[in-house]
Amino acid sequence: MKLTVYLAGEIHSSWRDEIKQKVAALNLPIDFVGPMENHDRSDNIGEEILGKQPDTIFKDAAASNFNNLRTEVLLKKSDLVIALFGEKYKQWNTAMDASAAIAFGKPLILIRQEEHHHALKELSRKAHATVETVDQAIKALHYIFE
Amino acid sequence: MKLTVYLAGEIHSSWRDEIKQKVAALNLPIDFVGPMENHDRSDNIGEEILGKQPDTIFKDAAASNFNNLRTEVLLKKSDLVIALFGEKYKQWNTAMDASAAIAFGKPLILIRQEEHHHALKELSRKAHATVETVDQAIKALHYIFE
Amino acid sequence: MKLTVYLAGEIHSSWRDEIKQKVAALNLPIDFVGPMENHDRSDNIGEEILGKQPDTIFKDAAASNFNNLRTEVLLKKSDLVIALFGEKYKQWNTAMDASAAIAFGKPLILIRQEEHHHALKELSRKAHATVETVDQAIKALHYIFE
Amino acid sequence: MKLTVYLAGEIHSSWRDEIKQKVAALNLPIDFVGPMENHDRSDNIGEEILGKQPDTIFKDAAASNFNNLRTEVLLKKSDLVIALFGEKYKQWNTAMDASAAIAFGKPLILIRQEEHHHALKELSRKAHATVETVDQAIKALHYIFE
Amino acid sequence: MKLTVYLAGEIHSSWRDEIKQKVAALNLPIDFVGPMENHDRSDNIGEEILGKQPDTIFKDAAASNFNNLRTEVLLKKSDLVIALFGEKYKQWNTAMDASAAIAFGKPLILIRQEEHHHALKELSRKAHATVETVDQAIKALHYIFE
Amino acid sequence: MKLTVYLAGEIHSSWRDEIKQKVAALNLPIDFVGPMENHDRSDNIGEEILGKQPDTIFKDAAASNFNNLRTEVLLKKSDLVIALFGEKYKQWNTAMDASAAIAFGKPLILIRQEEHHHALKELSRKAHATVETVDQAIKALHYIFE
Amino acid sequence: MKLTVYLAGEIHSSWRDEIKQKVAALNLPIDFVGPMENHDRSDNIGEEILGKQPDTIFKDAAASNFNNLRTEVLLKKSDLVIALFGEKYKQWNTAMDASAAIAFGKPLILIRQEEHHHALKELSRKAHATVETVDQAIKALHYIFE
Amino acid sequence: MKLTVYLAGEIHSSWRDEIKQKVAALNLPIDFVGPMENHDRSDNIGEEILGKQPDTIFKDAAASNFNNLRTEVLLKKSDLVIALFGEKYKQWNTAMDASAAIAFGKPLILIRQEEHHHALKELSRKAHATVETVDQAIKALHYIFE
Repeated sequence: MKLTVYLAGEIHSSWRDEIKQKVAALNLPIDFVGPMENHDRSDNIGEEILGKQPDTIFKDAAASNFNNLRTEVLLKKSDLVIALFGEKYKQWNTAMDASAAIAFGKPLILIRQEEHHHALKELSRKAHATVETVDQAIKALHYIFE
Repeated sequence: MKLTVYLAGEIHSSWRDEIKQKVAALNLPIDFVGPMENHDRSDNIGEEILGKQPDTIFKDAAASNFNNLRTEVLLKKSDLVIALFGEKYKQWNTAMDASAAIAFGKPLILIRQEEHHHALKELSRKAHATVETVDQAIKALHYIFE
Repeated sequence: MKLTVYLAGEIHSSWRDEIKQKVAALNLPIDFVGPMENHDRSDNIGEEILGKQPDTIFKDAAASNFNNLRTEVLLKKSDLVIALFGEKYKQWNTAMDASAAIAFGKPLILIRQEEHHHALKELSRKAHATVETVDQAIKALHYIFE
Repeated sequence: MKLTVYLAGEIHSSWRDEIKQKVAALNLPIDFVGPMENHDRSDNIGEEILGKQPDTIFKDAAASNFNNLRTEVLLKKSDLVIALFGEKYKQWNTAMDASAAIAFGKPLILIRQEEHHHALKELSRKAHATVETVDQAIKALHYIFE
Repeated sequence: MKLTVYLAGEIHSSWRDEIKQKVAALNLPIDFVGPMENHDRSDNIGEEILGKQPDTIFKDAAASNFNNLRTEVLLKKSDLVIALFGEKYKQWNTAMDASAAIAFGKPLILIRQEEHHHALKELSRKAHATVETVDQAIKALHYIFE
Repeated sequence: MKLTVYLAGEIHSSWRDEIKQKVAALNLPIDFVGPMENHDRSDNIGEEILGKQPDTIFKDAAASNFNNLRTEVLLKKSDLVIALFGEKYKQWNTAMDASAAIAFGKPLILIRQEEHHHALKELSRKAHATVETVDQAIKALHYIFE
Repeated sequence: MKLTVYLAGEIHSSWRDEIKQKVAALNLPIDFVGPMENHDRSDNIGEEILGKQPDTIFKDAAASNFNNLRTEVLLKKSDLVIALFGEKYKQWNTAMDASAAIAFGKPLILIRQEEHHHALKELSRKAHATVETVDQAIKALHYIFE
Repeated sequence: MKLTVYLAGEIHSSWRDEIKQKVAALNLPIDFVGPMENHDRSDNIGEEILGKQPDTIFKDAAASNFNNLRTEVLLKKSDLVIALFGEKYKQWNTAMDASAAIAFGKPLILIRQEEHHHALKELSRKAHATVETVDQAIKALHYIFE
């Protein structure tokens, strides 16, 4: 049995690569999908496709079309979602994707540092499991295949 | 990961071939499905299977059985729907299929010329993305696989 | 038992008033809801709430937010939908609302003149019943309560 | 027809009272529900019911049980959700509730200041409407009843 | 708490009246709904609303629109379905309505004489309870309110 | 694209073999599934697995467990259902399976002889298409792949 | 706003009366429903309605029809479920009802004594909240209305 | 056609191996999945991933996260669930998983010894089939492929 895992969350660090490499080393049969990780491309994709927009708000609105499209197609193909909250940025998208995953019936692993426990307590309770590190999330993935 | 894309909309121009060729040139792993594109066959399929009907209204009703059957089987196999509104014809079918796609939880890309923006504003808001050309829709497909 | 009926479709004639008056005369326990019938208000509602937009396309996009919001709240409160296609205008919204009604599991009565039978054949097949006049639709409503 | 509206979002300002008073002045038939607005009570409810917990993380986990329980009961009774993002705090809960509302099929109005447009662009696209002020949200509510 | 019960099944005997009278005598808070019980009216309703049809098959097709419309509106308003199989007639409609009830998540009581046990064994297994008489079905209704 | 088609209905004639052979001759990529076609085995499966039952009613109840189990597993794997009503027998199971197919969102082709048009009018209206012969059903399958 | 709460679980103690009285004293607008609490009646209801069965297994099977029917009708009318595990008996029904509640999207409060924490850990994790006493459950109900 | 079967229930005997070997001998195309069968590992998985917990209750809560995550991922990949109730232990998890299977629309075979018929009567009625031995369950699997 093969699983597809969507990696939601911040795109400013290389945590996705870390997961992919470690899971590959463990030979777990997992395909990973996720959002556009090139931040500029993610911000500009609306104007790239639709052309110049009136101002930055409309530019953002244009980009959001294609980011949501991508996320929804890939999230629906997934068996499980891992959402990582990083140290900075607002990350409302991460909370949105995590909540959507729960609503779509996709089991959810939340990765968040201890310092965020208060602000994430309700989302954490809705997740199937909350861990603090990428390595812990990998152990959880591994446990499914044992 | 492979996607199946349903191409809804007008069957009087060759926009489907254009998408298929350009997507093939890009090597995107996409299978395309869609409605019967032979207009006469689509209109006559009811009488072809069920025999001569009392009048043109009943002939239409007979054909609609098999066109709806085909659409529903193929739409449910799809991961994404692209709906194109052309320059003429009523195209209520296109609006119907686009709306059904949204209701089935299939992400939707709408292609419509600028001149239709007013009449399509509510459907456009429900779509995941609205573009004006086939090339823009292909860019959106491409973005999913980047 | 009381029913709520959503009246989808064109807003240029007074067919909704006709239905309401005739149903009232029959003492059928039905509440009617529907879209904003003041066409200008429907077109301008985006700018009225959000302020002046960059151009007419953005003005339309702004208006569609609030028209869709209204439709979805009211459609979900309804037990049955009647959708009327009139003699002119594109009426893609009507096809969209009718298709959404079917998808939400709301029984649908379609009113369309005979001349539209070809263009509406697939939607007609999906509807629970297709009639040609308001009076026929009222008979169908009446039949539910007999 | 009466609507129930869930007011999601920050609990540090009095925006809920403002909405309730203005809607009452307009005589709109709306019942409002929402989260526990007493912040301390919301944080302490776990220990109040279950007793002293080992540390603040477990205290948060305990509280989250009852906050989620309350939210889910009330959200499911609602016809529409308004989610307000304020000027500070992480507000991941607000993003979570807004996303859950969409997933439950509850139409969503987002209130956010212009400065948050970038961070909220994807959630904003999923909402039925995004506005910047409480007064604009009230106009949207009013439009449903016109 | 009040329940709405849909009485599916044959319309050639007065079993519905029997249930209604006995339930009224027991003061159970139940509203009953069901199909058109006037057989001729049920057969002719299509032509009554749509006018003369080309032949009896088209007449049947026309009638089925309005019978299905009525059933679906009322079935969806119900909390429980009782389906009675009588001694004669094909009663495929009864099997269809019973199966639809199960699919819609409506608890189902089947009334069938012992002689039909073989032909109805699979449907009986899907029903919540199978009884042989109207009085037994009433006892089952009564048990819900004890 | 490959489709799985469930062949519901009577098990006293060889109509399933006819469909399979003709579809094979057309090289359509279709896998067929269906109920146990050995009538005795279908009737005895309960006692074969669970042992001798108290009487024929309990024997039927025992068999229905395993027939329903088989049907539900296979029906859920299918993309489309063909249900054939034959010339005799009660065939309530066929009506039940056809109705369940519709409820599960599986497109349905009904095969029934003209003489049954009255008794099957409501089920026929719910089906995607109603035909009179196996050959017509095969044409409908063929149309999906053209 | 009024809530309906289903009280699942053991029927050998008077915990339901305790909840009802204390909630009444608090003037919370809650209606309570639940299973047949007369144990003998619950065991005998199958034979009471269907007559003498061949042995105790068939007697149990007969009773289960009507107990499941009652539970499903009432559970579906509820906004929230409280499930109490007592000190003895197998209580698989309680686990079944609690799990069904979660699946139906009904928020769940679990009451279990500390000694059962190990055997109930997975169900507890799925519940919205787990408490040890009736009084704690009442506090949770109260919190929803504050 | 290949099926995936989830084997829920007690993990103290080797019944899963027995099923796998006998099904392999029959050459049935079935993949089996199920819970962690190493009891200690199942109990300790929370502390293994999250580290030492304050007491045994929190240790259990921690473990339940990962056991539920595993179960939900695998259950959703399954076409059918077999749940076995053994001779001892509380087995509330088994009842929970069986009930969840029903709710997810997964056909369910229950294996329970005759002595448990009373305590499991309601769950047994909800299952598609209840048998007493592993061999009977295998016969039921076999019947699906005949």
